[in-house]
Amino acid sequence: MPDIGALLSPNAVAVIGAAPDDEMLRGRILYVMKQHPFAGAIYPVSRSHGEVQGLKAYPSIEDLPERVDLAIMIIPAQFVPDELERCGKAGVKAVQILTSGFAEEIGDDGAKAQQQLREIAERYDMAVVGPNSEGFASTKVALCPTFSPTFNNQTRPRVPEWRKNGHIAAVAQSGGIGFAFYDRGRPKELPFSYVVTTGNEAAINGFDVIEHIIDRNDTDVFLMFMEDVKDPDTFRRVAEKAMRAGKPLIVTKVGKSAAGERAAASHTAALAGSYSTYQAMFRKYGIIEGGDTDEMVEMAMGFSLFGHCLPKGKRVGIVTGSGGGGGWMADTCSLQGLEVPTLDAATRAVIDARIPAYGTSQNPVDGTAGAVREIGYANLLGMVRDSESVDAVIGITSARRASTYENERANLTKLARETEKPVLIWSYTNPADEAVTSLSQIGLPLFTNNNNCARTLYEMSEYRAFRERFLRAPEITTGSSATKSSVKAALDSANSVLCEYQARPVLAEYGIGDGQARMAKSAQEAVDIAAGIDEPVALKVQSPDILHKSEAGAVVLNLKTADDVRAAYDKIMASAKAYNSSADIHGVLVQPMAPAGQEMILGVNQDEKFGPILMVGLGGIYVEVLKDVAFSPVPFGTDDARRLLDQLKGAALLHGVRGEAPADIDALVDLMVGLSKFAADHGEQIAEIDLNPVLVHPKGQGVSIADALIVKSPS
Amino acid sequence: MPDIGALLSPNAVAVIGAAPDDEMLRGRILYVMKQHPFAGAIYPVSRSHGEVQGLKAYPSIEDLPERVDLAIMIIPAQFVPDELERCGKAGVKAVQILTSGFAEEIGDDGAKAQQQLREIAERYDMAVVGPNSEGFASTKVALCPTFSPTFNNQTRPRVPEWRKNGHIAAVAQSGGIGFAFYDRGRPKELPFSYVVTTGNEAAINGFDVIEHIIDRNDTDVFLMFMEDVKDPDTFRRVAEKAMRAGKPLIVTKVGKSAAGERAAASHTAALAGSYSTYQAMFRKYGIIEGGDTDEMVEMAMGFSLFGHCLPKGKRVGIVTGSGGGGGWMADTCSLQGLEVPTLDAATRAVIDARIPAYGTSQNPVDGTAGAVREIGYANLLGMVRDSESVDAVIGITSARRASTYENERANLTKLARETEKPVLIWSYTNPADEAVTSLSQIGLPLFTNNNNCARTLYEMSEYRAFRERFLRAPEITTGSSATKSSVKAALDSANSVLCEYQARPVLAEYGIGDGQARMAKSAQEAVDIAAGIDEPVALKVQSPDILHKSEAGAVVLNLKTADDVRAAYDKIMASAKAYNSSADIHGVLVQPMAPAGQEMILGVNQDEKFGPILMVGLGGIYVEVLKDVAFSPVPFGTDDARRLLDQLKGAALLHGVRGEAPADIDALVDLMVGLSKFAADHGEQIAEIDLNPVLVHPKGQGVSIADALIVKSPS
Repeated sequence: MPDIGALLSPNAVAVIGAAPDDEMLRGRILYVMKQHPFAGAIYPVSRSHGEVQGLKAYPSIEDLPERVDLAIMIIPAQFVPDELERCGKAGVKAVQILTSGFAEEIGDDGAKAQQQLREIAERYDMAVVGPNSEGFASTKVALCPTFSPTFNNQTRPRVPEWRKNGHIAAVAQSGGIGFAFYDRGRPKELPFSYVVTTGNEAAINGFDVIEHIIDRNDTDVFLMFMEDVKDPDTFRRVAEKAMRAGKPLIVTKVGKSAAGERAAASHTAALAGSYSTYQAMFRKYGIIEGGDTDEMVEMAMGFSLFGHCLPKGKRVGIVTGSGGGGGWMADTCSLQGLEVPTLDAATRAVIDARIPAYGTSQNPVDGTAGAVREIGYANLLGMVRDSESVDAVIGITSARRASTYENERANLTKLARETEKPVLIWSYTNPADEAVTSLSQIGLPLFTNNNNCARTLYEMSEYRAFRERFLRAPEITTGSSATKSSVKAALDSANSVLCEYQARPVLAEYGIGDGQARMAKSAQEAVDIAAGIDEPVALKVQSPDILHKSEAGAVVLNLKTADDVRAAYDKIMASAKAYNSSADIHGVLVQPMAPAGQEMILGVNQDEKFGPILMVGLGGIYVEVLKDVAFSPVPFGTDDARRLLDQLKGAALLHGVRGEAPADIDALVDLMVGLSKFAADHGEQIAEIDLNPVLVHPKGQGVSIADALIVKSPS
Repeated sequence: MPDIGALLSPNAVAVIGAAPDDEMLRGRILYVMKQHPFAGAIYPVSRSHGEVQGLKAYPSIEDLPERVDLAIMIIPAQFVPDELERCGKAGVKAVQILTSGFAEEIGDDGAKAQQQLREIAERYDMAVVGPNSEGFASTKVALCPTFSPTFNNQTRPRVPEWRKNGHIAAVAQSGGIGFAFYDRGRPKELPFSYVVTTGNEAAINGFDVIEHIIDRNDTDVFLMFMEDVKDPDTFRRVAEKAMRAGKPLIVTKVGKSAAGERAAASHTAALAGSYSTYQAMFRKYGIIEGGDTDEMVEMAMGFSLFGHCLPKGKRVGIVTGSGGGGGWMADTCSLQGLEVPTLDAATRAVIDARIPAYGTSQNPVDGTAGAVREIGYANLLGMVRDSESVDAVIGITSARRASTYENERANLTKLARETEKPVLIWSYTNPADEAVTSLSQIGLPLFTNNNNCARTLYEMSEYRAFRERFLRAPEITTGSSATKSSVKAALDSANSVLCEYQARPVLAEYGIGDGQARMAKSAQEAVDIAAGIDEPVALKVQSPDILHKSEAGAVVLNLKTADDVRAAYDKIMASAKAYNSSADIHGVLVQPMAPAGQEMILGVNQDEKFGPILMVGLGGIYVEVLKDVAFSPVPFGTDDARRLLDQLKGAALLHGVRGEAPADIDALVDLMVGLSKFAADHGEQIAEIDLNPVLVHPKGQGVSIADALIVKSPS
């Protein structure tokens, strides 16, 4: 396994391609590096200079006076493979390649060259990051090999020295955005441990970097900007590891839209993939999605300071000296899914005794500006925080002056440190730099945006609940080995499409339906089968060449008499032949009509990257008009299945909202879990499974699968 | 009409209650005022001081050496009414009251005192703003009577001197938020003409202020924060005036949630009212709703600089040197409702000739950082702007250094000034102050948030389209005077509830349904009526005491034979009596069954503030589960009706999305327009109208009103 530690804390560094002119990118890197007191040696490697920016330069990596862990490479693309080879031979353990012109280029040459880099990296077991990256910064060891202006001529220390924990790492394919996280977060006095930009990810990808940083245990929150997931297994392993460690991943994934996908493909050669699948994967691992840099940075701030005491619920107390600000925040909290309850009587009595008649203790607690000063901001926040009605507090302020907080520094620090509930601060005015510093030293997160503040609290609460579930979730057992091999054998021997009559028995091995499928090869056989069924029957053509049976006119429902069945059989055969004269028709399925129920659809589709993804939706118009569907990777358990259903906008329909009996959600959940296990065990063989429609009957009466289809993966 | 001009540009000002100590609010106001070179005299009025902060003070408003237009009042609440009276007598034309302790207090006393202020204001025709306000700033005349720290010790001029137009006014009930707009916007070099905080709005409300400012014609964009609308007529008049003048109103309304409503009620005594009605009112007048201060300020920035050339459509070209930033912005634009099309071949050819192989011209145009420098940022933006494929351009930048723009100042200025398409700039890093200033002088709006940038462009495009429609919309003619008086007479003579058989003929006068209602008073009458109808019939009880007929078991559908009709009649009567033994039963309505159609509901409800509001929704589960309804004030025309339908999430159902014939949307639209006219003409008499369900038949086959009910307003 390549050693990313050699990247982030090397013994010494070579800068291959270093140039004297700091206006050029090749010169800038060294120029920036030299501004930071990295303890190891920095060796410029240059063919044309004996000295670069005051440092002795060497003609080749092989000529250095010591073996270096890390090489930074910024030379023309065509020289990169040979140079990487040379690094490998010289015992270099990590290489960050900044050079562009690989897989992001039009044509195959760049992609081939990139593949070459990957092979060399593997051969020498080197941690190769890039190409097409913007470098990185490892703040603790003061190593900043990047041409990003962010670490050039800094006016503040790399990290606020009073922050001993709650460090944040930014990991991004895009150099601009990766360093922008730091650029936005540093003025908020947030402690960044690392900024790593991974570019095209020829070898090491962002999740490799995160895994290494989790193992270092010097970072508590991750900000990530990604264009694709290069290695799904690494993603899964690292996402799970992060959740187990309680270190939140706050992520933006580009390529939600066609244009965004185009952009990602063109500039780091990423195949963006289906965004709904990504969302399902994020949800599975409690990954938090952000929509803009400030939102992501402010969310990281909340976790950075209060990750150790996340709120136990969604109830928030709001303390304000501005009535307008209080109302606005109350609305914002509600929109973001938080609750703003009226405070308990005991707390209100305590507060009412201290505020004027034109203030209010109900929540938002509007102390009025004067009373806030008199009672003390820390005291008022503390009174609300101690209320049994709330899980967290938002304090509203105008952070124009540090003195507001400096005057109460001891009390506010106590409030921030000795608490089991987080206290977040929102300033409705532009905070002064000194006020930002003051609150950071005190230990309270200062938000500049009301939405970000409320959303952060919501996500903190969700994260806590998610993690508790995640840690106690039992391992999911899929099919027994006997079941697995029996189904595998059936799938092996099947043709590429399994019609309903073929799919049913296979699915039944996982408890999906009863497996019954009565096929008729003649009208008389149909009549005979129907005679053995008490209810009215449905007839459906069975042909791998006719997947849209209704469209083909090859389904007839609700048949009650032998004559009707006979006529229906003949009509179906005629329609099917008319629809597709060369169709291979296996026969006609005769089934009892399912009793009424809430129509749903269930399906499994194969995602190129992440494998089988289960889909569930409310049937008919809900799917077609409202796209009301939810996705999940497989397998999953009953709790997950319930939460998946809760994602549906029309979920209330299952609860009998119109006065009907509630539907048999337990049976639906069992079906979903069974299907998820089937998909997990046989995903490789399967391109698609459709159970459409599934009818969910009233509670206690189960579900009926009214149609089923399996399409095998092309082998 | 009180003269708000006397507030914003008075000859001279008295400060009633001025105190020497500038740490007290009473001293702060004068202290702040004196920092700004207002041309008129400032007279402290104080009972206890002969001189205040170096200015000669006067014991009473009556003792001043000249009549003053404006008095600022900050004295204890109990003295305010008398003092206001004294101002009236002294010929003061405008008074801003900062004192708290009026209607926002618990109990009636404050509300009564506030009513007193209103009466005094009316008696003297004074423009009284407040009480419980934070003052105002009139930047051009350098008058800043406020204790807000925003105008205290300012480090920049009140307004950037190079901004000659595109001024922004902030009007807010909340002082904190009103001045926060300025506080957030001034560092972005935005020109604010006025900040006015209106507090409890005892007399003058925010829309009065806006109307006055529109008439002054020195302001192009309005930012507004409100807790309620005090006077609906003023709101309507001013909202329309603003749209006609092309001056956008960007508004946040507090009280969307229960907690927000509570907050508004407690601190400026606002009755927040139904948020869905507010949204309908905002939509009617093209008012733009904002969610946070930065978003609102950044939207105002877009209009401030490019209000004169709003985009003709939603197609945006993105120019970036950061691939990651480009992808992110492309996604953001798509999420915000913009289109990011691939550029036309001609434009691409021009660009491709100038960028390296690892750049891309497709859109986002990723010129790469190097190429952007070489071609010139202005040139590259211009190339994309000139593409026939786009209506606007977003340029992505890292605004860390002013030199990036200063080096191209002439070209960028030309780009900004000589354009028919707006060009917006987003910086993914924190902009440097000098860069902000540079771009402001150049005339390009610099956004710090990707969402705000994309949303601003979207709203600019929407605003243009809305205004074009608004200006050319024909006046809506409601019922003729004969129709009006006939319906009025019918409503006058009706009881409080008009059952279906009574409502139908009244509604029919406005073309709503055919008015037919055949009532049976006996089973035989029902049979006779049914005999004259070709189709199956429905029977429904008619009683003002049984509004939920189905629940009462007093509806029977789809009756085909005389026997069935007779039995149904008897069942209905029995069920109705069982349901409510004292119900006044008028008879049983016999109707042909409506043919199948898309189920909708239409209704009208009386809003306390804004009068009748029409509601339309997709029937059944759509309303009940998904709350898929849309609201509009009345009357409206066919275009508005169509747009109202487009607001429904399930609107596609009407277009025949499942392969069915499209529904008769024209007939539905006619029905909606008719109902809106009915409601407009007779709103005062009506509490509620329900047409539920309405069945919309396939195109060309009209609509059926399957049930109708009118509830009169309590007179």
